[in-house]
Amino acid sequence: MPTTAYTELCGLLRRAATLKSVNELLNWDQETYMPPSGGPGRSDQQSLMAGLTHKARTEARIGELLKVCESDGKVMGDARAAANIREIRRDYDLATKLPPALVEEIAKVGSQAQEVWKHARANNDFAKFAPWLEKMVSLQRRKAECYGYPSGGELYDALLDEYEPGMTSSQVEVIFTPLRARLSDLIARIAASRKKVGTKILTSKIPAEKQHAFGQVVLKAMGFDLAAGRLDVTTHPFCSGIAPGDTRLTTRYRDEKFTDALYGTMHEMGHGLYEQGLPKDRHYGEPLGDAISLGIHESQSRMWENFVGRSKPFWKWALPRARKALGGSLMKATVDQLHAAVNTATPSFIRVEADEATYNLHVMLRFEIERGLISGSLKVKDLPGEWNHRFHDYLGIKVPDDRRGCLQDVHWSFGLFGYFPTYTLGNLYAAQFWEKINSDIKDLPKQIGKGEFGTLKSWLNKNIHAHGRQYRAGDLCQRITGKPLGADPLLRHLEGKLGPIYGL
Amino acid sequence: MPTTAYTELCGLLRRAATLKSVNELLNWDQETYMPPSGGPGRSDQQSLMAGLTHKARTEARIGELLKVCESDGKVMGDARAAANIREIRRDYDLATKLPPALVEEIAKVGSQAQEVWKHARANNDFAKFAPWLEKMVSLQRRKAECYGYPSGGELYDALLDEYEPGMTSSQVEVIFTPLRARLSDLIARIAASRKKVGTKILTSKIPAEKQHAFGQVVLKAMGFDLAAGRLDVTTHPFCSGIAPGDTRLTTRYRDEKFTDALYGTMHEMGHGLYEQGLPKDRHYGEPLGDAISLGIHESQSRMWENFVGRSKPFWKWALPRARKALGGSLMKATVDQLHAAVNTATPSFIRVEADEATYNLHVMLRFEIERGLISGSLKVKDLPGEWNHRFHDYLGIKVPDDRRGCLQDVHWSFGLFGYFPTYTLGNLYAAQFWEKINSDIKDLPKQIGKGEFGTLKSWLNKNIHAHGRQYRAGDLCQRITGKPLGADPLLRHLEGKLGPIYGL
Repeated sequence: MPTTAYTELCGLLRRAATLKSVNELLNWDQETYMPPSGGPGRSDQQSLMAGLTHKARTEARIGELLKVCESDGKVMGDARAAANIREIRRDYDLATKLPPALVEEIAKVGSQAQEVWKHARANNDFAKFAPWLEKMVSLQRRKAECYGYPSGGELYDALLDEYEPGMTSSQVEVIFTPLRARLSDLIARIAASRKKVGTKILTSKIPAEKQHAFGQVVLKAMGFDLAAGRLDVTTHPFCSGIAPGDTRLTTRYRDEKFTDALYGTMHEMGHGLYEQGLPKDRHYGEPLGDAISLGIHESQSRMWENFVGRSKPFWKWALPRARKALGGSLMKATVDQLHAAVNTATPSFIRVEADEATYNLHVMLRFEIERGLISGSLKVKDLPGEWNHRFHDYLGIKVPDDRRGCLQDVHWSFGLFGYFPTYTLGNLYAAQFWEKINSDIKDLPKQIGKGEFGTLKSWLNKNIHAHGRQYRAGDLCQRITGKPLGADPLLRHLEGKLGPIYGL
Repeated sequence: MPTTAYTELCGLLRRAATLKSVNELLNWDQETYMPPSGGPGRSDQQSLMAGLTHKARTEARIGELLKVCESDGKVMGDARAAANIREIRRDYDLATKLPPALVEEIAKVGSQAQEVWKHARANNDFAKFAPWLEKMVSLQRRKAECYGYPSGGELYDALLDEYEPGMTSSQVEVIFTPLRARLSDLIARIAASRKKVGTKILTSKIPAEKQHAFGQVVLKAMGFDLAAGRLDVTTHPFCSGIAPGDTRLTTRYRDEKFTDALYGTMHEMGHGLYEQGLPKDRHYGEPLGDAISLGIHESQSRMWENFVGRSKPFWKWALPRARKALGGSLMKATVDQLHAAVNTATPSFIRVEADEATYNLHVMLRFEIERGLISGSLKVKDLPGEWNHRFHDYLGIKVPDDRRGCLQDVHWSFGLFGYFPTYTLGNLYAAQFWEKINSDIKDLPKQIGKGEFGTLKSWLNKNIHAHGRQYRAGDLCQRITGKPLGADPLLRHLEGKLGPIYGL
């Protein structure tokens, strides 16, 4: 199958990916070890590399080779090669559809708006941010128009499609609507429950070095290859699949709540296992060596963080090890206590501090609001009111100020619209995959209880990671679970776990 | 003065420097934090960036703009701009004189020869390495022919000029000849002296973390800006002036000899202070923002390592601090004991382990031998014999095997010819500058004894660093000291220090 054109095309993509990988390292270094005064020089390096990457991805030769491959039966008759070509076409069109002037303007306005947002949030001053948000919304609308969207759809679809290829806002709505209703109800029932869950057991003062050592124990046990990766400390945890054989995770340590770092580490490790599981040895730079979507990526991080990490079997294995490594309040804790303490569900204002259940309500609220902003049905000036009203509806508490309301996230300031829903899509995919995994691996809880994570990791490697982007997210979900993505598995998971804890 | 052509030219150089700075980070990361499996991906990144850097440095537009500037009285009438143009021309010619096929062949043979050398050294098997060294010598001769050299000179001059612009082998010979004779004599007198210097005081078991903390204390006191730099740990210490505001040092810690790391750190810091002192804010990427030569760079590292760090005043300041930070055997040490212990002079076989005095004999030996290889007066097959014979002559001890003789250094295997002499040139420049500095700053020893390094650093900033490459090394030396580079200051320094220690 590998024709001359196909091989040349893959070579060009590999070159573009190598350029991008260099920028990934620049970003990682900036967050980890770069001395403060290196900032201006770093931004020169980054913009130069971003420009070279964009140029490499959009060069005309790629378009020529694509056309040759698309009309070559030998290539298109091979399912994997055809999928590669399908996704290369998608990427190339996306990359070439935007006029460079618009890309530059979004970058420029984004960087200014982000500065304004920082101050607006600090001073709880939405009015300061509003004109910049308006500018950004109108730029995003222009961007969406350039991308285009399927007939019968809406502008927002074009933005969502960038992060979750093939997904439309009406599909999201169909899933989110029942999820929101039943989740809201669950949260309300928990709030009304007389059973309170103690979390004091989690607030022991444990030095960062001990937490770091324990994090590495967990990574190793779960199969993250530390010879092909690292764990470092940053203000905002992330995972960067820099290059083949080089996947770096970061976390942060608070002395007073060790589970923050532990679950942060397991979350990023979920992303990292996906990166390490992609067939980069054979397909680096090609869609076949790349991750499907943000939603699928998030499903991997959420699975290890929540479905594994917040389960009783996990604590059965982890508690004795945590006692040895961390000591403190853990010496007296029981598995049941820990399991309950890490599974509380309590409405709060800040998304990034929300628990597993309420988190999704924060996300759905943002999806509805940004969809309204892009369609024009919601004006920027009406944003705070709309936010606060919906927030109270879904979570039952009143937003005290915009700082803890619509000003809390950085995303919109630099133009991330269509990104938020992928967080909850990740939870939904994770839940739906998890049910299938447990039917395939009958004794998985027992394995986890013994610290055997290999069967689970192999399942993920084989059924999800190894395919790269051969299947779109929706097709993969159908292929694996036999059903389209739905709200039921996640609801079953949350209700099944929280019900007993709160005595519902 | 800044004409359109001049400005455009500087912009192109800045872009090339930014590309190179990215490769510097890739190299730094490879030695510090890259996970082992990242190797193959890293080498793809490095060769891609090296190619882009070379392309950016050799693009035809630079040649066009150079011509415009060279014939523009407005540019050439400005001493600094003219110096910039002079050096840009030099760099451009050097970069464009070599046929790409030769560059590639040197890189390819170099990487293979380096592997062969590793095994040859491990197995003490010069015969295995000999054919590769012959290949490399003949490639270096071809390189030298492409570069060309002044009339009356020799092929080796072309190679030396790459690292020490403007310096010729006959100039080096004129300085090295008396240096070698008097140094050999000094070492022989020391060997014959009945006074032995104890070094037991240096061999206290001190954990790496404590040494690292003390290293940072020293860096801070001496004015290395840690907000614009870092200190990390690598197998082979180095300094990388990655980008403006980002200068990174590395060192290595041995539990059992804390002065190894201390002087390693001070050595790299000398390089680092030079990098931080260059006017990169205004001239990044231009010769005016760049270091003059390897010899001048080495003069800065040697000055802090040997002229400051191995002096009595330094220990007067450092000992109480070292006691506090390191403890161990230092608790009972005196300034005089330490000063003597770090200034022993004892012939040994390995260059990188040699002391301040004997080191130069190792270097001069290599200069003579590589000069002979390039001129053809020495055949590769005769190298071991010639090495051992000269070594015994200069250092008075017999080389036991090639592993500890002519196979010990990596340099020749990948084509570094003309590089070795810059090590001793650095010591010579340092000594000559040091005499002038002490006549300009009369109470410098007193200042150092109090831990006041600011006047010294400012002197170096003003008289050396700030100029970038405005002056060639020889001109700078003449300008600062009123004399051409000579052997006397270094000999005075060594004889003056070692004489009393060994009771000569």
